[in-house]
Amino acid sequence: MTCVLLDHGHVTTPSGWRAGVAACGIKYTGRTDLALLVSERPCRAAALFTTNRVVSAHIHYDRAVLARNSTSIRAVLINAGSANACTGEVGIAAAEATAREVERTLALPTDSTLVMSTGVIGLLLPVDRVVQGIATASQHLDAAHGPDAARAIMTTDTRPKQCAVRVALPDGEHIHIGGMVKGAGMVHPNMATMLSVVTTDAAVEPAALDAALRFAADRSFNCISIDGDTSTNDTLLALANGRAGNPLIAHIESAEGQAFLAGLVEVCQRLAQEVVRDGEGATRLVTLTVRGAVSDEDAHRAAMAVARSPLVKTAIFGGDPNWGRVVCALGYSGATIDPDRVVLHFGPVPVFAHGVPQPFDELAAHQVLSAPDVLMVADLGMGTGTATVWTCDFSYEYVRINAEYRT
Amino acid sequence: MTCVLLDHGHVTTPSGWRAGVAACGIKYTGRTDLALLVSERPCRAAALFTTNRVVSAHIHYDRAVLARNSTSIRAVLINAGSANACTGEVGIAAAEATAREVERTLALPTDSTLVMSTGVIGLLLPVDRVVQGIATASQHLDAAHGPDAARAIMTTDTRPKQCAVRVALPDGEHIHIGGMVKGAGMVHPNMATMLSVVTTDAAVEPAALDAALRFAADRSFNCISIDGDTSTNDTLLALANGRAGNPLIAHIESAEGQAFLAGLVEVCQRLAQEVVRDGEGATRLVTLTVRGAVSDEDAHRAAMAVARSPLVKTAIFGGDPNWGRVVCALGYSGATIDPDRVVLHFGPVPVFAHGVPQPFDELAAHQVLSAPDVLMVADLGMGTGTATVWTCDFSYEYVRINAEYRT
Repeated sequence: MTCVLLDHGHVTTPSGWRAGVAACGIKYTGRTDLALLVSERPCRAAALFTTNRVVSAHIHYDRAVLARNSTSIRAVLINAGSANACTGEVGIAAAEATAREVERTLALPTDSTLVMSTGVIGLLLPVDRVVQGIATASQHLDAAHGPDAARAIMTTDTRPKQCAVRVALPDGEHIHIGGMVKGAGMVHPNMATMLSVVTTDAAVEPAALDAALRFAADRSFNCISIDGDTSTNDTLLALANGRAGNPLIAHIESAEGQAFLAGLVEVCQRLAQEVVRDGEGATRLVTLTVRGAVSDEDAHRAAMAVARSPLVKTAIFGGDPNWGRVVCALGYSGATIDPDRVVLHFGPVPVFAHGVPQPFDELAAHQVLSAPDVLMVADLGMGTGTATVWTCDFSYEYVRINAEYRT
Repeated sequence: MTCVLLDHGHVTTPSGWRAGVAACGIKYTGRTDLALLVSERPCRAAALFTTNRVVSAHIHYDRAVLARNSTSIRAVLINAGSANACTGEVGIAAAEATAREVERTLALPTDSTLVMSTGVIGLLLPVDRVVQGIATASQHLDAAHGPDAARAIMTTDTRPKQCAVRVALPDGEHIHIGGMVKGAGMVHPNMATMLSVVTTDAAVEPAALDAALRFAADRSFNCISIDGDTSTNDTLLALANGRAGNPLIAHIESAEGQAFLAGLVEVCQRLAQEVVRDGEGATRLVTLTVRGAVSDEDAHRAAMAVARSPLVKTAIFGGDPNWGRVVCALGYSGATIDPDRVVLHFGPVPVFAHGVPQPFDELAAHQVLSAPDVLMVADLGMGTGTATVWTCDFSYEYVRINAEYRT
């Protein structure tokens, strides 16, 4: 049962997948802003959407499609530039019109196409331009175009984010799992905090795919924070086309299911970490582990409070070993905590233990916090609950990007 | 029943109050960092402390004192530079030692002095220097020194924050309520999100004072957010020395109680707004009203989500009428909301109504958001619940201050 990360893997690395892109000028000029993903065979689908009460038109549309058909999805159309959120009935009609155009162009059945949008809230989707883009993208579908798709869906992202793994199933067969994600701001659970598509050539039952996706999201996309804002559009979609020819994976508890799950968690964690590393203005990826909590849920609660704290995040930007802000955030997290039991490390450096500051080398701690990868471990000393989350620092650049984004 | 804001009012404007300050060099040099407030008569006291599970030594100490004596407090000692938090038993002993020194120096009874600390977490309070400062401050106690006290307790504050009102009671007598506050970062409910002392010469029963303080805090300090971080040290203290000679106010429901309450709310709201206006790096004071919620609590929940959103706050810094971020924050607030019923105004400009964007003059909206005082009103269209909260924008300067604060 092995899971191998592939060099230069991407969303169309699994068998039977192709992608095409187009430049529609929805908001950006001089770049692609539309990606079309197509599977040669019908896919089992599972999806997780934002917990925000205000949701994009694409989520209204996709939920309706998946309620009718979660076993034979063939295509996904994704645009950047307009979020198609807060656009009312007109927005939902636009989502449907573009999905129908994909089905017409590729001669696919009705309700076999899902759509996703990302960009400015309140901007209507220009259907005419998207329709032209669908024509372009569908003429250039290719299994090598996964990286182009990852690039086309970017907004404030500075780089495409993608990966793929090959998993050896217990019976010796190999399957692939690939994925791409966009997201750099308005990123905070619950749940999937961006747009992400995970593809696989494995054959998986819908219920098992859904269970696997929830398990993986809880250990990846639900463990990251960039700014504490939960978007209206967040979508994580998993599509399994069965092209690998493996015996159908019916349960995640089976040996095959566990192997598939390990690969899916690997892909989702890598994509989620890439989102944080490319967080708006981010200069550091911070991995924060809380252990010794009364439960895993409590550990997660404590860790996310630290991950979200602007004061912790600005201190990390400054490379300032200001551990008091971490202890403070643990304190207001709502987790069960007794400061007299807490032990906090920055990298290998103990900074606070059992209620009192620890003498430490300021320069060594500064260096730990100034590296591209920062590790913090807080042991609450209360029990056996653990959680690991990822966050980034908060820089001048975050403010610049978000003060200027729309206008 | 009138409440008049006094020109240049401060914490020792009420009768029977004096203040003194000293420069102890706890962290800062070339400025005062210790304030001593003294009442000539014993005071009824009420206090609200942070909800953080990790609390400053001064809160441990004050809670113990108030449990023994909430009816004859005489003095408050406040230092800036060290938060005396995460300092264990040594920190609590330091708090007690400095309180005892005040009592010794001023010949006050044991347990008549409260202490407060603000500054860096994890820094031990240098008791020797504070003791020297107590000697200096106690030699210069004066009713005109309230403004000096407000200045001595500042940390990253750019200006002292204080006010006083005169209230005419129904029977014709006048009382005064004064206050000061420090706080510019790590400011978010619940509850009192800074150090604040409110003094009055009114005679008020302890239970009535406590009820009045909670009522006023819920409409002032619990309605502001600068960065979403709840400090370990937040303290709001109300002290009533009865020097005005009014008949004892026994209940806030009485006519006298209502007059006192109106004055207390006025003082607390002014101080809370001053905290936001002087928020770290802030360039705007944003007043946000949510109405039409299913309850006042739900309105408060929705408003605070907007007030806390880094994306809303950076958009305001840029003067960008990016209303989608406001609707998004309302959506993830947890409040009951249907986007098809929401109507949002920036100043007089309607920007979103009943699920769809409203055409508006970009320049007019930009001007609304670029003024020092910004007003936003969101009507959820669900019921009669209302709440008003105050927040500030999020600027480069916030990042600079907090990336550099400690080192």
